[in-house]
Amino acid sequence: MPLFMDVHSLGDGVTMDDVAKAHAADLATQGEHDVNYLRYWVDEQAGQIFCLVEAPNAEAANTVHRDAHGLVADRIFAVQEGS
Amino acid sequence: MPLFMDVHSLGDGVTMDDVAKAHAADLATQGEHDVNYLRYWVDEQAGQIFCLVEAPNAEAANTVHRDAHGLVADRIFAVQEGS
Repeated sequence: MPLFMDVHSLGDGVTMDDVAKAHAADLATQGEHDVNYLRYWVDEQAGQIFCLVEAPNAEAANTVHRDAHGLVADRIFAVQEGS
Repeated sequence: MPLFMDVHSLGDGVTMDDVAKAHAADLATQGEHDVNYLRYWVDEQAGQIFCLVEAPNAEAANTVHRDAHGLVADRIFAVQEGS
């Protein structure tokens, strides 16, 4: 399954709690799109979020965010993990 | 130990092999700076690299990149991992 890193640049700051709620909504939504949000990292002060996600394609990953909470990523990158 | 996600936006594309060599140089250098580069992800076509790193501070993480291969990150974010 292709791997993606998506990037949200909110600018205004964000709380771990708010992101956790959005992530829970992603997990509840992703199954029907064959998407698997794996891990995420948040810079609360900078309002920056990184989500690591397996998905058939970038649009499927974005669709989960859109359906779950409406906050789609600003950018999404097709990545490979180094070893 | 604080956690950071650093972002390299090379623009021109990059190969996994080249990034693996730079990462190996990071690992050989980091000990003296109390830094631990944990994982990294690469979008070869976009020339985008994400490095997850534990470090006492952002400057220490940057110093390892600078000493190891000179390719410092374009941005570095103080992150917490979600769960």
